[in-house]
Amino acid sequence: MPTHVPDIVIGRLPLYLRALEHLLKEGREITSSQELGERLGYSAAQIRKDLSFFGEFGKQGSGYRIGYLAQELRKILKVDREWPVVVVGVGDLGHALVRYAGFKPKGFRIVAAFDNDPAKIGQQVGSLVVQDSRLIPEEVKRLGVQIAIIATPASAAQEVADTLVAAGIRAIVNYAPISVKVPAGVRIQYVDPAVQLQRLTYYL
Amino acid sequence: MPTHVPDIVIGRLPLYLRALEHLLKEGREITSSQELGERLGYSAAQIRKDLSFFGEFGKQGSGYRIGYLAQELRKILKVDREWPVVVVGVGDLGHALVRYAGFKPKGFRIVAAFDNDPAKIGQQVGSLVVQDSRLIPEEVKRLGVQIAIIATPASAAQEVADTLVAAGIRAIVNYAPISVKVPAGVRIQYVDPAVQLQRLTYYL
Repeated sequence: MPTHVPDIVIGRLPLYLRALEHLLKEGREITSSQELGERLGYSAAQIRKDLSFFGEFGKQGSGYRIGYLAQELRKILKVDREWPVVVVGVGDLGHALVRYAGFKPKGFRIVAAFDNDPAKIGQQVGSLVVQDSRLIPEEVKRLGVQIAIIATPASAAQEVADTLVAAGIRAIVNYAPISVKVPAGVRIQYVDPAVQLQRLTYYL
Repeated sequence: MPTHVPDIVIGRLPLYLRALEHLLKEGREITSSQELGERLGYSAAQIRKDLSFFGEFGKQGSGYRIGYLAQELRKILKVDREWPVVVVGVGDLGHALVRYAGFKPKGFRIVAAFDNDPAKIGQQVGSLVVQDSRLIPEEVKRLGVQIAIIATPASAAQEVADTLVAAGIRAIVNYAPISVKVPAGVRIQYVDPAVQLQRLTYYL
């Protein structure tokens, strides 16, 4: 394993993995950096360079064995296992995330959902019952969870992040439309549905 | 306006805009490429280079006027206006998107929601009534919409994309966990909640 890989490279690996999984579903066995690049909008050279951080995955001129490369990427990304994840905030978006069927095949399982609204606590959402946010510290520890999704309003996000980090969470996906501060060593990813739209209008 | 700006640069502008809007909310008036870089995890040089595609936004050594730069970015991204958007697929995720309060301040308004499930057609979601997907062609034309969000299951996504494109849609955000083919000239952005998680586990 290399000592340091740029974050931007790590950020692209899940997209490569997804493209490979689509190819596998189409019944394909071999692909090339050219084909992957065309599917993803990157140059073939970029893909070869990114993968070269982790070793040699294809023979010159004969392409990549899709199943093998996908499995190697899963190992590198550590999604060749199942990670438990908690969701905080069970409004519309949190509700959708708790019930989202796409996490399991990618290596994740939502194991608890929290809200501070008495009307939501105790509600059944998918296979889970919404718990009181005050239980976050003990539940996160009990379940040994390192990953959390914040789906609260902006006003609650920083306090929730602080609580999660104190409880032992080390990676956060933040859907709340606000930046939150976390200590060094805690990773955070922002998701903003409006930002995706703003990336398109330039071209219209 | 420059003739060609790399997609990756356009993709970063909404993040700069969001950071500037947060600074404004904090009551700030001036910022620097250093500060923006620290907030966003980019180098100051990267930010200066990206902005230089579009002109001179700050004086050497005196930083950027936040309100001015935000307004200029809104113009460049064409979100200094309100774009109508349609949502197709009103499951959990589509429901959350139709009701999402974060679109309006960013320049977008959901003007119609479609589903092909008879149990959902006619249902009130937020201020909209879910319409039959068969009405997509006439409604998209009638409302003059160019942007759509696909929130259907993977199995329906390609057919929905084809229908949208035929109706005149030129930009799509795809939440369905599958790649879809669209003709040249139609822009597509993929959003995959699992990919965001897969970008974090490497570091755990």
